[in-house]
Amino acid sequence: MPAVHRPNEPNAEAEIRELFESRTRALASKDAAALAAANDAAVVVFDAVAPFVHHGAETAARKQEWLAAYRTGIGHEIRDLKITADADLAFCHFLVRISGTMLDDTEVSMWVRATSCLRKRNDGWKIVHEHASVPFDAKTGKAVVTGDL
Amino acid sequence: MPAVHRPNEPNAEAEIRELFESRTRALASKDAAALAAANDAAVVVFDAVAPFVHHGAETAARKQEWLAAYRTGIGHEIRDLKITADADLAFCHFLVRISGTMLDDTEVSMWVRATSCLRKRNDGWKIVHEHASVPFDAKTGKAVVTGDL
Repeated sequence: MPAVHRPNEPNAEAEIRELFESRTRALASKDAAALAAANDAAVVVFDAVAPFVHHGAETAARKQEWLAAYRTGIGHEIRDLKITADADLAFCHFLVRISGTMLDDTEVSMWVRATSCLRKRNDGWKIVHEHASVPFDAKTGKAVVTGDL
Repeated sequence: MPAVHRPNEPNAEAEIRELFESRTRALASKDAAALAAANDAAVVVFDAVAPFVHHGAETAARKQEWLAAYRTGIGHEIRDLKITADADLAFCHFLVRISGTMLDDTEVSMWVRATSCLRKRNDGWKIVHEHASVPFDAKTGKAVVTGDL
């Protein structure tokens, strides 16, 4: 059976693309409030680094720690963004290269896989679930951290 | 602003829950065809182990390799399944403990974070994107593999 898919809801794709572009700007300028504004209060996050799960307000605190660990702004280069959206729900996946210089002079450049799930509210699209990760190498048990894909 | 969310589409939650229960049965009995039937032909998978991305038919081949690596059936114990669904789209996240005995006698027991994104087609809900991962420890660079959460 052919996979006949409805087209995305008009405007939804553009609105969600803008949400991620505003995240890229917020990370460059370390604007924690703008980052937090994209999330639903009850967001559930599976992040690339431990622990296993963050919930709601804890997520905002984590993001602030993350921003504070960098001397520079944080680079957030999105590739292969694929958005699926109807009037109320949307999900998308993309690859994102995180980069910058940490306070201890560590130069970060790593690709991360990301999945975001959103709901449309009266005040716009909000992220209700986000999953970011790198795979691990089954032989070594090490996370696959790479600046080149 | 309070997050006023519409309830899930009637039946969708039960149908998607059944999809994951049928996966649990398929892994226990190593039924590769039943596993593949839940996926859209164009599924995009971010798996817990490398490489970064699998697409479509490659995914089915990977699943067969995975099943073949186990002497036993594969345990697939789902916890904290949260489903959000309307008539056409759905997304869900859950934790899942993968377990079993591999051909080389390795005893596997590990919790994985999972996000699945689905579309309703004429022949039922199909997974169009799936993201499974474990976090890594930022200090050691090691994947966090645990049988206890």
